[in-house]
Amino acid sequence: MSDYTAPLADMRFALEEIAGISEIAQLPGCEQASADLVEAILEEAGKLASGVLAPLNRVGDKEGSRLENGVVRTPDGFKEAYRQYVEGGWNALPFEPEHGGQGLPMVLATAVLEMWNAANMGFALCPLLNVGAVEALTAHGTAEQQRLYLPKLISGQWTGTMNLTEPQAGSDVGALRTRAARDGDHYRITGQKIFITYGEHDMAENIVHLVLARLPEAPPGTKGISLFLVPKFLVNGDGSLGARNDVRCVSLEHKLGIHASPTCVLAYGDSGGAVGYLVGEENRGMECMFTMMNNARLNVGLQGVAIAERAYQQARDFARQRVQGRPVTAKTAGTYPIIHHPDVRRMLLMMRAQTEAMRALAYYTAGAIDRARHHPLSETRARQQRRVDLLIPVVKAWCTDLGVEIASTGVQIHGGMGFIEETGAAQHLRDARIAPIYEGTNGIQANDLVGRKLLRDRGEAARELLADLRAIADRSESAMGEDFAAITAMLGAGIDALEDATAWMVATGGADLPRALAGSAAYLKLMGIVVGGALLAQGALAAKTRLAASASDTAFHQAKLATARFFAEHVLATAPSLAPAIKGGATTMSFDLEGF
Amino acid sequence: MSDYTAPLADMRFALEEIAGISEIAQLPGCEQASADLVEAILEEAGKLASGVLAPLNRVGDKEGSRLENGVVRTPDGFKEAYRQYVEGGWNALPFEPEHGGQGLPMVLATAVLEMWNAANMGFALCPLLNVGAVEALTAHGTAEQQRLYLPKLISGQWTGTMNLTEPQAGSDVGALRTRAARDGDHYRITGQKIFITYGEHDMAENIVHLVLARLPEAPPGTKGISLFLVPKFLVNGDGSLGARNDVRCVSLEHKLGIHASPTCVLAYGDSGGAVGYLVGEENRGMECMFTMMNNARLNVGLQGVAIAERAYQQARDFARQRVQGRPVTAKTAGTYPIIHHPDVRRMLLMMRAQTEAMRALAYYTAGAIDRARHHPLSETRARQQRRVDLLIPVVKAWCTDLGVEIASTGVQIHGGMGFIEETGAAQHLRDARIAPIYEGTNGIQANDLVGRKLLRDRGEAARELLADLRAIADRSESAMGEDFAAITAMLGAGIDALEDATAWMVATGGADLPRALAGSAAYLKLMGIVVGGALLAQGALAAKTRLAASASDTAFHQAKLATARFFAEHVLATAPSLAPAIKGGATTMSFDLEGF
Repeated sequence: MSDYTAPLADMRFALEEIAGISEIAQLPGCEQASADLVEAILEEAGKLASGVLAPLNRVGDKEGSRLENGVVRTPDGFKEAYRQYVEGGWNALPFEPEHGGQGLPMVLATAVLEMWNAANMGFALCPLLNVGAVEALTAHGTAEQQRLYLPKLISGQWTGTMNLTEPQAGSDVGALRTRAARDGDHYRITGQKIFITYGEHDMAENIVHLVLARLPEAPPGTKGISLFLVPKFLVNGDGSLGARNDVRCVSLEHKLGIHASPTCVLAYGDSGGAVGYLVGEENRGMECMFTMMNNARLNVGLQGVAIAERAYQQARDFARQRVQGRPVTAKTAGTYPIIHHPDVRRMLLMMRAQTEAMRALAYYTAGAIDRARHHPLSETRARQQRRVDLLIPVVKAWCTDLGVEIASTGVQIHGGMGFIEETGAAQHLRDARIAPIYEGTNGIQANDLVGRKLLRDRGEAARELLADLRAIADRSESAMGEDFAAITAMLGAGIDALEDATAWMVATGGADLPRALAGSAAYLKLMGIVVGGALLAQGALAAKTRLAASASDTAFHQAKLATARFFAEHVLATAPSLAPAIKGGATTMSFDLEGF
Repeated sequence: MSDYTAPLADMRFALEEIAGISEIAQLPGCEQASADLVEAILEEAGKLASGVLAPLNRVGDKEGSRLENGVVRTPDGFKEAYRQYVEGGWNALPFEPEHGGQGLPMVLATAVLEMWNAANMGFALCPLLNVGAVEALTAHGTAEQQRLYLPKLISGQWTGTMNLTEPQAGSDVGALRTRAARDGDHYRITGQKIFITYGEHDMAENIVHLVLARLPEAPPGTKGISLFLVPKFLVNGDGSLGARNDVRCVSLEHKLGIHASPTCVLAYGDSGGAVGYLVGEENRGMECMFTMMNNARLNVGLQGVAIAERAYQQARDFARQRVQGRPVTAKTAGTYPIIHHPDVRRMLLMMRAQTEAMRALAYYTAGAIDRARHHPLSETRARQQRRVDLLIPVVKAWCTDLGVEIASTGVQIHGGMGFIEETGAAQHLRDARIAPIYEGTNGIQANDLVGRKLLRDRGEAARELLADLRAIADRSESAMGEDFAAITAMLGAGIDALEDATAWMVATGGADLPRALAGSAAYLKLMGIVVGGALLAQGALAAKTRLAASASDTAFHQAKLATARFFAEHVLATAPSLAPAIKGGATTMSFDLEGF
């Protein structure tokens, strides 16, 4: 029912005009990202996404993964799709060439990852988690661990998982109880982990678990946590597979969405202890975990973009064919599809404009990661890294909250059909709902933004960001026409509000942290809206320049101006009104807990 | 997992201080609603809701209703629960005494209906649809139809349905094709209806379908539609049941939520035509339908309130017992439940404050219905009816949109557990999602508010409302203290914004209706926020008076001030910022349809 076509024109536009991929391709280590290669990759990824992965999305939802005698069977077609994905070399795209990666820029990998998630979020979770394992081993693994595991994780022949959560230890990782005991050159792991995405499945010959556990006599809390590599099958020195390790999937969760993705309860050490290998140093597991989680947060934010795009395409296609009622805009007799109704257009534009703003923010942040890694000037690298650190929680939380909202609007556009599962619109809402929760709830992202990112440098990175946003607003002010007049007014007020709120947060956070944190979600939303709106304005400026330079793609570029203006009127306009919520923490914190 | 306790103190407060139930009980025809009786009814309804209906909510979701050989079996326990509901006399509560109703005020019935929907929305839909049938027959039925059908529909011994939708005729009722042919003193009905809630089930011995159909040679569109009464079993002159009528349930929909409620495809006339009786006049079915739908819209709005309350209670209980992380507010060692985290409090207050605002709006509107029916002065009756007509679409759309949002926040507070179906939080989100769609999508409500309610009297009813809101703001301004200073500032700005937007809508709607309608959803939201905020301010003023008068329930009344202020800071504050969206219809309508 629901088709997906990768929005290549929109993606190219965001890559070029928002993230600056041509500039990134000039950086040392990024040279192979030539315009031709980028184009070829986008085209081919789009084919795999729409031709292979998207048609399995509904199957995945209906069948789900099933646990049968300790073996997890993925839905029909997933194994074969994964084989195609690996054989196409797609898994290796973002990784360093040293162990077989293609070494392409993060920003390009981000666009490609958007396609996998839009096509089939339940499928895409498997490679998404694998990224964390690769990054942890790349940063903290021994040479031998890297030699044995990285090439196969990078190719996708094996997959990786992240094992953090236990029943009593969700967001509070420090409360975990899984134990590790030294046993010669390795360790023995015992305990139970929950919520392990693709913790067991039939798409790859081996699964490499990265497991947080506690050594005997380790200090309590997060300072006593170490990271271990625990393969499903032990690996011989020549890379061949050895004995089955002592880790078993004991059950799968029955979830609201992402049914294709098996969410496993894993039991370690029921038969004496699973063999594990230390990654990094003892009791320094949290650092390794943050390495795994940081890009994972960007990638989860991207799921919000992806599911919004998917929901938008489905709602648009439905609105174009569903005939119902005579719209007030109808000038002639005959039948009209519901896309002619003003409120349906409003909903579609709300979906579209916000999706473009989110994509702009996500690609922009991915581009900053490339610059932070590859820019020749250390000062620029440091500045870009500050930008990344600041924006990662915004990408994660703002985009995933909007992903849910937009998928919900997608259901609404379908009317009664939206509530019927066969239509497929409801699946997007169900799938989207996990993204604000995992990889650190959005509340934790807001706390991270204010409590760590903003307070640790007393707002410096935020002020650098504000200066860049002002530059966009200034350029918008100089541009002619009604659209830019409207955009400039809303953007200017939004930047003022963000500047004021940032100063308030920095001042208040030191004196009364609970009060600041009570306003942190509203502050994060404000930052998402203002940065998203500014990046759409930057896109509109680029579109205007292109319109003046060439007569091709006129409609496409005019639409960029229109969505930027729509976003300004419908979303940016609300930015200053968030101030009382941002600063209203006293009301929240003084509410009597017994009064709830 | 999820318990529900009727929030009796909050309900009493809203009934007394917002809807003015004591004043309503003085009106002719409402005298029996003595304070004692009201209290007894709330208490007893609360027991049935929490003791019988709420425990079946999860069962209903898991099992769902099933179609087996043409018979629909409701989930385990539903039949028995319905029997208790009928035997308790609950179904008769809101109806006129003439045919066995209890003749209690609408506002009291509204509070009771909130409980049924919060306890078990899938169950409550059966009596909810029945109300429409009773009202249509009361207003338009012949004396004989009333004698034969009303007593049993009012007692609940039989249930009623509304049959509007067909595959090609959803919101566009005029497109329906079901045919009716005269056959002696009755008619023969042939056609297929979809989305018929409780169109077939096993809880009552007979089902009375109210079916919209088209007579031969009827004019096209809505002017050619007539309403027919089609009983599942024909009814003899003495009220006993006769032959099975020619109407069959051919399938049930597989839906996102409200699984307990069977959503039927009904086939009429597969064996020659179902016997139907004309209700009202030929070709005047639309009028009868509006009689059925008007209160149904209030009641669906109430489902938004109800599911929000249910989701709130579950999230609050979880936040009180789930220990996770050390909150920044922690002053001593030990473990703390997550309710201590500032952002969790913020989410809970957002749920609570908005739920109270919605309840205030719904009860206030129900109280206006009582006044419109029973006030001795015709001028007052007319004025109250104008208020009802204006606010019904706001209750329906604003409360159901918020119902989805609040249920989604409920999932979020649960973290990973919220995404697991066993927890029950996800069910509320799935159930809530239908309410913005049925009984007229929320887009249709916004069009109704602007295109009919506002334009037909050129804003008169809205100006009357604004004057009443101003009076509340004036009283708030005179009240002392920081809370009222904050509330007054936000409320005043909100009322200004609503006044300005109303004038703009009235001026624009005549000249450029599509442009006005493109802003109608934002205008409806503005009205919901401002009226909701004003009614919370009215409640805060009453709480202040009570606090000064008595030392009892101090914490309860202080919480009313706190939620009113929280709502002002987090929601009312955003009201003026909706202006660009309300007035931005030109951007929406000029967007190239090919550009989507």
